[in-house]
Amino acid sequence: MNTSDAHGARERLVVIGGDAAGMSAASQARRLKGPDELEIVAFERGHFTSYSACGIPYWVGGDVSDREQLIARTPEEHRARDIDLRLRTEVTELDLDRGRVRARDVDSGAESWTSYDKLVIATGARPIRPELPGMDAPGVHGVQTLDDGQALLDTLSRTSGRRAVVVGAGYIGVEMAEAMIRRGYEVTVVNRGEEPMATLDPDMGRLVREAMEGMGITMVNGAEVTGLPTGDDGGVRAVATEDAEYPADVVVLGIGVRPETSLARAAGLPLGEHGGLLTDRSMRVRGHENIWAGGDCVEVLDLVSGQQRHIPLGTHANKHGQIIGAGAGGGYATFPGVVGTAVSKVCDLEIARTGLREKDARRVGLRFEAVTIESTSRAGYYPNASPMTVKMLAELRTGRLLGVQIVGREGAGKRVDIAAVALTAGMTVDQMTSLDLGYAPPFSPVWDPVLVAARKAATKIRATF
Amino acid sequence: MNTSDAHGARERLVVIGGDAAGMSAASQARRLKGPDELEIVAFERGHFTSYSACGIPYWVGGDVSDREQLIARTPEEHRARDIDLRLRTEVTELDLDRGRVRARDVDSGAESWTSYDKLVIATGARPIRPELPGMDAPGVHGVQTLDDGQALLDTLSRTSGRRAVVVGAGYIGVEMAEAMIRRGYEVTVVNRGEEPMATLDPDMGRLVREAMEGMGITMVNGAEVTGLPTGDDGGVRAVATEDAEYPADVVVLGIGVRPETSLARAAGLPLGEHGGLLTDRSMRVRGHENIWAGGDCVEVLDLVSGQQRHIPLGTHANKHGQIIGAGAGGGYATFPGVVGTAVSKVCDLEIARTGLREKDARRVGLRFEAVTIESTSRAGYYPNASPMTVKMLAELRTGRLLGVQIVGREGAGKRVDIAAVALTAGMTVDQMTSLDLGYAPPFSPVWDPVLVAARKAATKIRATF
Repeated sequence: MNTSDAHGARERLVVIGGDAAGMSAASQARRLKGPDELEIVAFERGHFTSYSACGIPYWVGGDVSDREQLIARTPEEHRARDIDLRLRTEVTELDLDRGRVRARDVDSGAESWTSYDKLVIATGARPIRPELPGMDAPGVHGVQTLDDGQALLDTLSRTSGRRAVVVGAGYIGVEMAEAMIRRGYEVTVVNRGEEPMATLDPDMGRLVREAMEGMGITMVNGAEVTGLPTGDDGGVRAVATEDAEYPADVVVLGIGVRPETSLARAAGLPLGEHGGLLTDRSMRVRGHENIWAGGDCVEVLDLVSGQQRHIPLGTHANKHGQIIGAGAGGGYATFPGVVGTAVSKVCDLEIARTGLREKDARRVGLRFEAVTIESTSRAGYYPNASPMTVKMLAELRTGRLLGVQIVGREGAGKRVDIAAVALTAGMTVDQMTSLDLGYAPPFSPVWDPVLVAARKAATKIRATF
Repeated sequence: MNTSDAHGARERLVVIGGDAAGMSAASQARRLKGPDELEIVAFERGHFTSYSACGIPYWVGGDVSDREQLIARTPEEHRARDIDLRLRTEVTELDLDRGRVRARDVDSGAESWTSYDKLVIATGARPIRPELPGMDAPGVHGVQTLDDGQALLDTLSRTSGRRAVVVGAGYIGVEMAEAMIRRGYEVTVVNRGEEPMATLDPDMGRLVREAMEGMGITMVNGAEVTGLPTGDDGGVRAVATEDAEYPADVVVLGIGVRPETSLARAAGLPLGEHGGLLTDRSMRVRGHENIWAGGDCVEVLDLVSGQQRHIPLGTHANKHGQIIGAGAGGGYATFPGVVGTAVSKVCDLEIARTGLREKDARRVGLRFEAVTIESTSRAGYYPNASPMTVKMLAELRTGRLLGVQIVGREGAGKRVDIAAVALTAGMTVDQMTSLDLGYAPPFSPVWDPVLVAARKAATKIRATF
């Protein structure tokens, strides 16, 4: 085995994982320190760097014509900035005592050790794949990586069937339902939960289900998948639950992901209850001065509940990368935490949430009032004013905003940002009622829907005094 | 003269002005106190109540088909809630010593005194009409009231010419330019300022001008109107400036408004430097326990500059009305102030601003850094990702956000709300860089444009340390 640990006076930063968090960290560190001061080596298991996994549903659905469009920065671009990027190279072991990582060339199988002065772990997440019969059959596809997306597109171009079953009804599930609709498939979504979008309360999830049914999607809720029966050719032919079988020419798995932390676990690094790495505010792995971690493999602080969460989302991964790169490049930056904002859509239905759901609030001992209001995206008299439902939770006594969920059409989703900033600032719903939000008839009713919800919540909180 | 001041044990609330602030106050007071406890008398000079003046450009432009759609609540609806509404009745005098108002029936000329226990002044604003030759000629129209809008529509249906000149390039001016374009007119906008939209810095106003020119609108800047020459029939035929004459079959005045406070001034109530009534936080006129004022006739506290401003906008008027109604109905509510948010559009160009412009900041002695960035409304690879320019001002040393201006296409305008909430919360641009905003490719790049601006501003502020 070859060992490359003889490096000169300059420091070496080793990055494990070549997507958003890892390569943002590498790029930011490079901005702060030139190649004479800092050598940067980045290992990536796959073929691609710095791509938008969140864009895969739109590539599969045909909104994005070309895989290359999802790539924010190519390997060549990284290398041009003096980052020693090693593709198709998987890190198989962390040796913290000697400050080195063992990496294996995926194609040749050759292994070597690389020493580091500073280490960034950005190993991402792995899809949840329950061990069920047929899970590995042809025609069954995850959509976590560009390679996954390409494999699904290859299947779609090869097969003539028009029935797609999506397993899971979270963000990936509903976005893939849209993608398959757009490709002309009959779509069935099979979902374990009471309603789709378990990141919403069920009363808001019901609105999503009704809208998706209105789009012609068959929604199967409260259904545990028991297997993926295959046909004579060995390919998947259905999704089976305890009660029924749903014929499928292609199956898309949108069941979610877990932090990919097997390397970290083997090395004894601290993991949280969700299996993600635990870091301090500067994204350093707790107890390790020279190791950072970010992106889908870490847990983050939820500023509303005060507890750790695992939120795999490109926007966080990019922020983590910036902060890690600042630290590893000798600067200073911190990540305060998240409030749990997410936005998605199914065809023209927009779905957004931030903060705590009812069950989140209860779990951390918060008592609250919840209100739900109906309003419109624009002044009611303006063309294309579309309906929207806003649910808001506020803490008893303090009146502090705890969470907002929005389901509506065009103009609904990004309104959640108002609540995201208010949550970050610790505003009360009463304070929110006087927020000076943008108003003109094409943009909002004279009371923005978020303000209408805040007024109702504030009134309800006062009534409990 | 008839005097109706004999009222029983119940209190009487008199409201002057029947639009947003006045009637919201009346309605909210009625919610808190029934007719047995509180008599409510409201005087309105015109024919209408509770209408959206902001909607007039869209009615004139044809997006809103019907005047009635702009009326949120009719006189009959107010009367059904036991509000004694007197239309076409103008209050001509306030007698604070005896607690009464004199009102005149506009049609009959009859006058009478009405006594009050509590008074709400919601007299709105009056358009600025410079005293120039031809200003009252047929074909010259303001667009402040529904009556104004109707008169303009009557002119448009009568005349065959297709050349419209809009005087003024603020919100009303640019919205009326759009309205006249939609009606098929050749539109010229004559504007005193260096660039249109003086509520933006000139560098951002330039983007508006270029876009409007791209729509085929003739933009004349830095031009003082010297008169409105008329033809043989007495009707307007052009708009004259010092340098040129712009032929016009119809002229729309969008020059802005001033607080309508002549009654208040005559009664000796406190007015600010912009001519608006001065109130305390509960919207009581300063020094007057039983008189409230709100809407376009008051000045408001700018939370960013700490100074008083006059911001005539329906959304503020509605908030004021709620707060006044709470107070007059025996409850408690306050209006903390504004941050100066406004949003508008010209065809598909969206224009938004909040907080301070460069000159506002200088005027109040704030030193700052300004940054401008270009980004897109959606992920760059997603269909219809449209360009947007975001300008951000942050205070030196503290890094506190001072203001944001946005010019772009679909999805640009309401992003200003992120900054509006951050301003209200007193966030620094560095704090903003970690805001947890909604991200998915159809809604935003992985770094929302506002975050891109915040990052650049934070970097610039740090460089000055």
